Amino acid sequence: MKVFEEIESEVQSYARSFPRVFNKAQGEYLYDEEGNQYLDFLAGAGTLNYGHNNPIFKKALLEYIEQDGITHGLDLHTKAKREFLESFYEHILKPRDMSYVMQFTGPTGTNAVEAALKIARKYKGRENIISFTNGFHGCSMGALAATGNSHHRGAAGVSMSGVSRIPYEGYLGDDIDTTAYLDKVLSDSSSGIDLPAAVMVETVQGEGGINAASFEWLRNLQDVCTKHDVLLIVDDIQAGCGRTGSYFSFEEAGIKPDIVTLSKSLSGYGLPFAVVLMKPELDQWKPGEHNGTFRGNNLAFVTAKAAIDNFWSDDKFAKEVQRKGDYIGQRLETIVDKYGDGNMTTRGRGMFRGLNCVSGDLASEITREAFKHGLVIETSGAEDHVVKTLCPLTISDENLTKALDIVEQAVAKVLKGQDVPEEHDFFADDESSSEEGTEAAA
Amino acid sequence: MKVFEEIESEVQSYARSFPRVFNKAQGEYLYDEEGNQYLDFLAGAGTLNYGHNNPIFKKALLEYIEQDGITHGLDLHTKAKREFLESFYEHILKPRDMSYVMQFTGPTGTNAVEAALKIARKYKGRENIISFTNGFHGCSMGALAATGNSHHRGAAGVSMSGVSRIPYEGYLGDDIDTTAYLDKVLSDSSSGIDLPAAVMVETVQGEGGINAASFEWLRNLQDVCTKHDVLLIVDDIQAGCGRTGSYFSFEEAGIKPDIVTLSKSLSGYGLPFAVVLMKPELDQWKPGEHNGTFRGNNLAFVTAKAAIDNFWSDDKFAKEVQRKGDYIGQRLETIVDKYGDGNMTTRGRGMFRGLNCVSGDLASEITREAFKHGLVIETSGAEDHVVKTLCPLTISDENLTKALDIVEQAVAKVLKGQDVPEEHDFFADDESSSEEGTEAAA
Amino acid sequence: MKVFEEIESEVQSYARSFPRVFNKAQGEYLYDEEGNQYLDFLAGAGTLNYGHNNPIFKKALLEYIEQDGITHGLDLHTKAKREFLESFYEHILKPRDMSYVMQFTGPTGTNAVEAALKIARKYKGRENIISFTNGFHGCSMGALAATGNSHHRGAAGVSMSGVSRIPYEGYLGDDIDTTAYLDKVLSDSSSGIDLPAAVMVETVQGEGGINAASFEWLRNLQDVCTKHDVLLIVDDIQAGCGRTGSYFSFEEAGIKPDIVTLSKSLSGYGLPFAVVLMKPELDQWKPGEHNGTFRGNNLAFVTAKAAIDNFWSDDKFAKEVQRKGDYIGQRLETIVDKYGDGNMTTRGRGMFRGLNCVSGDLASEITREAFKHGLVIETSGAEDHVVKTLCPLTISDENLTKALDIVEQAVAKVLKGQDVPEEHDFFADDESSSEEGTEAAA
Amino acid sequence: MKVFEEIESEVQSYARSFPRVFNKAQGEYLYDEEGNQYLDFLAGAGTLNYGHNNPIFKKALLEYIEQDGITHGLDLHTKAKREFLESFYEHILKPRDMSYVMQFTGPTGTNAVEAALKIARKYKGRENIISFTNGFHGCSMGALAATGNSHHRGAAGVSMSGVSRIPYEGYLGDDIDTTAYLDKVLSDSSSGIDLPAAVMVETVQGEGGINAASFEWLRNLQDVCTKHDVLLIVDDIQAGCGRTGSYFSFEEAGIKPDIVTLSKSLSGYGLPFAVVLMKPELDQWKPGEHNGTFRGNNLAFVTAKAAIDNFWSDDKFAKEVQRKGDYIGQRLETIVDKYGDGNMTTRGRGMFRGLNCVSGDLASEITREAFKHGLVIETSGAEDHVVKTLCPLTISDENLTKALDIVEQAVAKVLKGQDVPEEHDFFADDESSSEEGTEAAA
Repeated sequence: MKVFEEIESEVQSYARSFPRVFNKAQGEYLYDEEGNQYLDFLAGAGTLNYGHNNPIFKKALLEYIEQDGITHGLDLHTKAKREFLESFYEHILKPRDMSYVMQFTGPTGTNAVEAALKIARKYKGRENIISFTNGFHGCSMGALAATGNSHHRGAAGVSMSGVSRIPYEGYLGDDIDTTAYLDKVLSDSSSGIDLPAAVMVETVQGEGGINAASFEWLRNLQDVCTKHDVLLIVDDIQAGCGRTGSYFSFEEAGIKPDIVTLSKSLSGYGLPFAVVLMKPELDQWKPGEHNGTFRGNNLAFVTAKAAIDNFWSDDKFAKEVQRKGDYIGQRLETIVDKYGDGNMTTRGRGMFRGLNCVSGDLASEITREAFKHGLVIETSGAEDHVVKTLCPLTISDENLTKALDIVEQAVAKVLKGQDVPEEHDFFADDESSSEEGTEAAA
Repeated sequence: MKVFEEIESEVQSYARSFPRVFNKAQGEYLYDEEGNQYLDFLAGAGTLNYGHNNPIFKKALLEYIEQDGITHGLDLHTKAKREFLESFYEHILKPRDMSYVMQFTGPTGTNAVEAALKIARKYKGRENIISFTNGFHGCSMGALAATGNSHHRGAAGVSMSGVSRIPYEGYLGDDIDTTAYLDKVLSDSSSGIDLPAAVMVETVQGEGGINAASFEWLRNLQDVCTKHDVLLIVDDIQAGCGRTGSYFSFEEAGIKPDIVTLSKSLSGYGLPFAVVLMKPELDQWKPGEHNGTFRGNNLAFVTAKAAIDNFWSDDKFAKEVQRKGDYIGQRLETIVDKYGDGNMTTRGRGMFRGLNCVSGDLASEITREAFKHGLVIETSGAEDHVVKTLCPLTISDENLTKALDIVEQAVAKVLKGQDVPEEHDFFADDESSSEEGTEAAA
Repeated sequence: MKVFEEIESEVQSYARSFPRVFNKAQGEYLYDEEGNQYLDFLAGAGTLNYGHNNPIFKKALLEYIEQDGITHGLDLHTKAKREFLESFYEHILKPRDMSYVMQFTGPTGTNAVEAALKIARKYKGRENIISFTNGFHGCSMGALAATGNSHHRGAAGVSMSGVSRIPYEGYLGDDIDTTAYLDKVLSDSSSGIDLPAAVMVETVQGEGGINAASFEWLRNLQDVCTKHDVLLIVDDIQAGCGRTGSYFSFEEAGIKPDIVTLSKSLSGYGLPFAVVLMKPELDQWKPGEHNGTFRGNNLAFVTAKAAIDNFWSDDKFAKEVQRKGDYIGQRLETIVDKYGDGNMTTRGRGMFRGLNCVSGDLASEITREAFKHGLVIETSGAEDHVVKTLCPLTISDENLTKALDIVEQAVAKVLKGQDVPEEHDFFADDESSSEEGTEAAA
Repeated sequence: MKVFEEIESEVQSYARSFPRVFNKAQGEYLYDEEGNQYLDFLAGAGTLNYGHNNPIFKKALLEYIEQDGITHGLDLHTKAKREFLESFYEHILKPRDMSYVMQFTGPTGTNAVEAALKIARKYKGRENIISFTNGFHGCSMGALAATGNSHHRGAAGVSMSGVSRIPYEGYLGDDIDTTAYLDKVLSDSSSGIDLPAAVMVETVQGEGGINAASFEWLRNLQDVCTKHDVLLIVDDIQAGCGRTGSYFSFEEAGIKPDIVTLSKSLSGYGLPFAVVLMKPELDQWKPGEHNGTFRGNNLAFVTAKAAIDNFWSDDKFAKEVQRKGDYIGQRLETIVDKYGDGNMTTRGRGMFRGLNCVSGDLASEITREAFKHGLVIETSGAEDHVVKTLCPLTISDENLTKALDIVEQAVAKVLKGQDVPEEHDFFADDESSSEEGTEAAA
């Protein structure tokens, strides 16, 4: 570990919660150098919706590299890019009757957000962007202006302009529809909120604490945008790619955003990849106007195509996600009922769920306790007060149950001082689990 | 090609210059789907200093993937990251007596620049950054503020603040040392240039037109920074990783920047990867303060380690680069002498060279002509007026000669209407070259 | 009028509503060149709380000029400035047990706001300022950032940063205490509203449409500021100097702002004058740090002293304002009841009142109709939908009645098509009124 | 003095250099409460080109106030405003064949600059403004962005954007025409200096240290503006109104700025007053778009008209200024020759001159010494290193000689330790001077 302490910057964060050196992963399992196995409820911060090293994707990736496929990321046409585009069109856009143009930005979410904001501002000729309380959109300067988190904002060191903040659903209490507030400030020429180019929203705020907007609120939001001739950008970087039970998180709400950002699980293999989808009329970029060296991660194209072909040709996977999401929801409700003393609540939608522990200390104690029993699980929210159940969507029922057992036991231990019954101890199951893991990896 | 036209954004740029679909690459060769072979003098915009798909790196990469190594990019400790850190320390930092801490930012150059600017502003508690005419540092909003190019700046759509522009070496003519101007404005409390946190400079401005600063100017720049207690950031994203004949482009000048950004050829395989190096006392980040999902591209760690181990254990490679760089320089001088009519000039250092054609139209005609003969080569500079010879550093002498022959013939054709002698026709060599390519890839 | 059309900029505004050339004024009367007399319910946009050309102030002013007193505005010590400071301390600060230091900024409200924002940011070392929907603080760039009006904001031409907008009292409906929203966003480290240096508020929003905050809301606002270690700035430029029935508009609420801006009626004679009052510990200016040529309008010092000595040595004047304010309130209520059809409402406090006509067109029709009958009266609000009764506080009861009669008749005419009974025609009273005017001036 | 110490803010500056309480002034004389007489070489920081309390202006002012003229500053048409407009047109614009529209901004220089920048940005639809090293344009946020002084800039507390800085004439040495540098950065699409809406320049930089641009440089500057379709704004706030020997400081250079700001001596009486002159096609303001309460200081209109009528009906006054300016220049040259030891230089044009003492400490010692002998004189420049001879243009030859004698003696004393011969002691002349003063005032 010494080299990390001596040479790597203090900025590291996840490594502090899970101070192990990992060297292998398969499906929902992570392994450290000492051979310990962990269930992964962090899932690359949402980049591993299909689990680690899916064997089908892996095969495609190995073949591509074997055959000396193009690996660099310059925006040249490549066979890998074409095949990805074709699959994305065939299995994602066409069945949903969506007409979007795709921009390959630098392969990070924050870069996709930067591009989305630029094209919105350019298209509308307006500077202001509406973003929401507790929103998270990235840490490069353009995206950071739209991000709510003061920990990140405080590092800017320069004024960030061009973004106005509006309360997200529920922020003013359950009785207030905050889209009505948005409508009012946009209708009021003296509100001090300049007419924006776009409203940018997450349908479920991941970093903000797993706050899920209702479909009605999202529809109202779209109506307000339409009324005031403002673009609607859905930042689907964390909530998209199936996490909430449909490919795009906004499908069920029935809205049609003008711009969508995707990243995280897009490659299906944890590889850096990000795109902006925009309605064709918005695509008023001049060649290279938003550029960057790594605008086409060909390895990611290969695995992304494999992911789409294998999981999104029909609705089976989506239904599985919904089923498992419901199960997670029920388990979390039970935990809240049994141990919450009226303080804890559950949050989220699909397999994008969390346990609001109100206190960040409590949430951290729970995740630390869970880690002791082999579960890698993290918190989110302004005070890190929400335990986030961000597992691979492909997790087996057995492991899902096991992991939620660990969560429940950790909550019980932390809140009630109840010991975890021995027969549920995770490492006791190590051997059999390990085997499963190995099988799955084979 | 239809899918690119229909679904991919108009923002695409390189694909317009080279309208082929590429599907394979090896060493200095690119191949399109129809089996045509090209010599690559674009090299992934500088990401392929070691050529495409180096067999040694490839082997390491395949093994890593085969063994289900960690692929996602979250900042967890992984074996791959540790091994990269160890190699980088052993072969790069230690022999150069450099004491730097490394920050893994999002895996793009622009993200590394964003992080570098933030930490400089945070450390010094000042907002202003000095950057230079014709500088290019990226297109996310923080980096864009420091970038000179109006094509990119114009897309911002919001005010960019916190950067003051100073003329680069030679901008005011050969007689003016622009670091003296910088010294003056920093000494003059009424100059209107606020005392900056840092000066950010490229030792050779790639996108700006292959403008190479002299070592003396760089030393003077460092002296001015020291005098005024200002940090010096070298953006070595394009010039670093050996391009100019040493690992860091600033080594020969003898300066010691406070912060260095690296990306592009860092992974050695074209994979997205970027880091910030900073003197240890600057590393005042709080955990996760500048974060992002893809802060550790493990596949890139694997190939980056292979690149360092294989090319930087001793000085052989550096010397080879210098030797070839001299050859390129001589060839370009000859071209200028023969066809330039006193208008053209050569530019650059090491294997980071260019032919200043003054006119962008001329430069484009030359690169188009070269492409007809199988050479992928691009332009840079404000008016795209510089033909850029950005080949892999590992190119064979034979191919280097061949490629420069094509450049010379293209210049002759465009400027003098001289036909290219048949025996030099590139595609005529296709078959044998193809074989070489195949051999190299094996 | 030709010279105005030919040489004066199109930016002129009030002159469009009242296309006369005025050449004389006394008390509540304005006269045009043709000898027409008007009752002035605009009162220099609130600069003439003591009426035009108060004979006592005038005498002092004439003597000062006669004796070759210092007239320029440089910040040198002058006898006139000292005497103003002494009077302000003796009659305003001391009886109210207020400990403020006074800064003479450039003699305009917007300049006082600029200085207030600077000192708040400097003192707290924070950039953000909270301002409110419908707030108006001026048109220079620093103040404009805090101003809500899009007509003015749209003219900036450059990004305005450093201000976050919060809904004013009542903006989210009567049931929502918007200070609780402010408390929430300041308590929530992920709200996206950076911890501000200060909250800047008008107790009654003049330009915003005569929105009067309740005392309770103001106290809650102060509590939120205290809780979060944020300064409270009351912009008392329009509401101060007696307009609401006490010298400072916030006295009755019992709050103690950290910073207060005053201007408009401060000189008592319509002369440019503005100051910032700040708690002594905030006065961390370095000499000349916020400067300007006209920081001490000595003519204004002379009349300002006269105003304070004559009107604020005891509470008689304040009580008169309250009495007349109540009368105006009753009259407006009656108008609303008789003609409003449930649509109109009254607004304001003290002699800072208005008639909310909801429609800007309606409000303009009413003021145009009133002008026909000799009443100069304007509108305010985002849509210019509020008829504003901004008369001199010193108006005679008779003229106050007469003016409100004209307002009522104008409302009746516009809303109900009812003709104004002849005996109330204003110009018919001209002669006697004229005499009164002359008497008052004597 | 106690009240100043206790109640007035620490921001006071001039009062620190001249710790007296002034109560009377006439022509070039200032008097303190103790009856001491001073020659005024500060002249209200350039607001008193016609001296203090000019009897003719005073008469007009007294009459206006006596007759209850309109005193408030709202932008209503008034007789006083019309008469000012007519005089300005007749005596200033028409004889110079200038076609300008006049905007009455808030009555301070900084407000005029804010308006000028806004209209330029609005008209051109561009954000950037070019301003110069050592430029001073005011302290409100829009103007401050263009101001060079770090003392003032440092107080902003928020990022200032939209201004790029270019070296003023001579800043890069005598051999470099900095307009060529401006031309280059505007011609170079990758310079990082965005195409500006306007260039804003002072023909003589007052606060910057009395740096006078040559007429050739000004013409070159205008040519560069024309070439790049950029507006030229001359900030003539300090150099205008006759200071350099013509009404506008740029007349002799033969340039035609698109926008001119005037303030300081515009009223002729030290009263707050500022205007923007712009070519008619630029006047695209919407009514009230840049507003403010005190946009028409009627008392200033009255004295400004008197000033124009009395001093600018013919060219006598201008010639007198030139003659006296030459005299000042010669005297300063002599001082430099006698005491400068090759270090001091003279600066400026017309009666806008200074003595560059290189060291701020030296300059301060000189002005302190001069003050001991009855001369109120200040410094300017980044380090306050220039002694500024900013006397009324109307000063008598005798007093001009006397004042320059005091300057010379102060320089001699400070630099050479030479005592001032007794017969030149200023206070010894007090009585006769006092009489002169009284006479002059009569």
